[in-house]
Amino acid sequence: MWSETRLTEVLGIQYPLIQAGMAGGPTTPELVAAVSNAGGLGTLGAGYMAPDAVREAIRKIKELTDRPFSVNLFIPEPIEVDEAKIEQANERLDGYREELGIKRPEKVGTEGPPFWEQLEVVIAERVPVFSCTFGVPPAEAVKRLKEAGIVVAGTATTVREGAMLEESGVDVVVAQGGEAGGHRGTFAGSFATGMVGTMTLVPQLADRVSVPVVAAGGIMDGRGMAAALALGAEGVQMGTAFLTCEESGTHPEHRNALLGSHDESTVVTSAFSGKPARGIRNRFITEMEPYADEFPDYPIHNSLTKDVRGAAKQQNKPEYMSLWAGQGAGMSRPLPAAELVHEVIQGAERVFSKFTQK
Amino acid sequence: MWSETRLTEVLGIQYPLIQAGMAGGPTTPELVAAVSNAGGLGTLGAGYMAPDAVREAIRKIKELTDRPFSVNLFIPEPIEVDEAKIEQANERLDGYREELGIKRPEKVGTEGPPFWEQLEVVIAERVPVFSCTFGVPPAEAVKRLKEAGIVVAGTATTVREGAMLEESGVDVVVAQGGEAGGHRGTFAGSFATGMVGTMTLVPQLADRVSVPVVAAGGIMDGRGMAAALALGAEGVQMGTAFLTCEESGTHPEHRNALLGSHDESTVVTSAFSGKPARGIRNRFITEMEPYADEFPDYPIHNSLTKDVRGAAKQQNKPEYMSLWAGQGAGMSRPLPAAELVHEVIQGAERVFSKFTQK
Repeated sequence: MWSETRLTEVLGIQYPLIQAGMAGGPTTPELVAAVSNAGGLGTLGAGYMAPDAVREAIRKIKELTDRPFSVNLFIPEPIEVDEAKIEQANERLDGYREELGIKRPEKVGTEGPPFWEQLEVVIAERVPVFSCTFGVPPAEAVKRLKEAGIVVAGTATTVREGAMLEESGVDVVVAQGGEAGGHRGTFAGSFATGMVGTMTLVPQLADRVSVPVVAAGGIMDGRGMAAALALGAEGVQMGTAFLTCEESGTHPEHRNALLGSHDESTVVTSAFSGKPARGIRNRFITEMEPYADEFPDYPIHNSLTKDVRGAAKQQNKPEYMSLWAGQGAGMSRPLPAAELVHEVIQGAERVFSKFTQK
Repeated sequence: MWSETRLTEVLGIQYPLIQAGMAGGPTTPELVAAVSNAGGLGTLGAGYMAPDAVREAIRKIKELTDRPFSVNLFIPEPIEVDEAKIEQANERLDGYREELGIKRPEKVGTEGPPFWEQLEVVIAERVPVFSCTFGVPPAEAVKRLKEAGIVVAGTATTVREGAMLEESGVDVVVAQGGEAGGHRGTFAGSFATGMVGTMTLVPQLADRVSVPVVAAGGIMDGRGMAAALALGAEGVQMGTAFLTCEESGTHPEHRNALLGSHDESTVVTSAFSGKPARGIRNRFITEMEPYADEFPDYPIHNSLTKDVRGAAKQQNKPEYMSLWAGQGAGMSRPLPAAELVHEVIQGAERVFSKFTQK
């Protein structure tokens, strides 16, 4: 069967299709379990979650499926606290706060998520697969995960990063092409040179590393899956396509924006978090764009905009929300996750039979 | 046979593989003819050529092959002559001129290529295929070409542009993804939103237009060709991969730069011409980058840098040359063009049989 690859064996899944671990709400236990139950690999995007919440979500997923699933965390990065930049960004945000009728929070979050505590939960709960982004997993983390029998996947945006990940001992490298929605995983080199299209990143990475490569970025249907496998990937990771699935926790306004988008709708911006990420252009992005060089580091800027994004969600105002989306968003459709998984697999099958019959 | 598509029929070729019409020297009659003789479609990049030179090259190609080939021209664009910008750009270039031991030319070229005269040659010579970039071909041009029995192909970087081209009556739409080397073909909307990756541009364009779509951008081997066909393209156009072919007119330093490049080597810059184009980063790009908003319009800025680029070529100084390259440049190999064509076709065949046998 064409869909059996080293990846399906390593992950213990039926189809080489991973639902991306998108942080911030969309990856409900229901979505994760639906994807795993359909034969793919669901992923909890736990990057921003408190350890207790991670544990609770994992246990809920286990109630909903007995198949393998994954939890995604963010690799800690050095954070520079620049009070002047924080004040300046806060002043710029005050205008939006006024419009939304909220007050500037007194406390500024200057720390990243509690990676090691989150990791303890992943290990204690014996989650089948651990995936990570924003860096190379620390040696101690890889060691502990492997001792617990947990498969480890890392995210690369360049060949160089893929080689660093392989060197660290990961079992799988996810190749995040420039088309991908949400945050860029780039951690070595500049974000600009890390914008390598899926079409060229996948074959170059597959030529360089010996572990299975998973293609991510712009894959929305069976055509994209077949293309990714043709390029040398052993599987695909899809994020945007799952955002409009019924089980996802995507905000209704975000859903609407995705379903109404097209190929020119997205832009890479650091306006929301201080780290470049792809989303649908809105008023907030356009107005904050000129100040991109002045934002505090990620995740400080992310914590500064948190109240604005939160109030915007409550008030259903998409112009201030982070509407993460990949360049394939124009192909989004509302459907159950299991249906999406099966359509992608059947679509890829149709592609391959088309070129065989001829 | 999997390689027979509507495109091979429309173009009268054996394999759905087009060698891109790269202007400025690489597409020698020898290269064009070698590609066509190998069963693909060679293209003369005649955008910058004087009408007499176009005629001479076409006649040379006809001596070397009796198979179909193509000539690519630039669609004229409105040009704004801003004397202050010209003087400022010239002053910035004077430093490079000094290093290269050349004087600032007295005359500034403020006109684009003689499109209508070039077109007359294409029509008079009954070239089998006409392709164009930078816009929608004028109705009069499409009418004359069709009357002469010449197949017309246009270049789109977005779905919107593809629809405009189809509306104008072109027979084929080339989808130029963001990975592509050389000048961006974008003519509607901004260059930024026109940076759509091949992985998402091709399926969205194939869903929108009914004429055959040709995928371009990041395709370097059989894997890329198979991926493009899987995405819904009926053929591929490859540029960068042909730059290191023996028959191409690529400068030796450009060739060296391509063969020594990797996935992070290229950047999109308007430093050389005033119009964004992808090439291998060098000193000239890096130093001119901060002034991108101040360059005169294309093609004026292109004519201003012409003497610098020319002297750099003569003196073998790649740091001042436009080293056009796509994001797949790291997969470049030196080989005869016919061998490249056959390897791509056989490689794609291998991909499809791999997923059939399983």
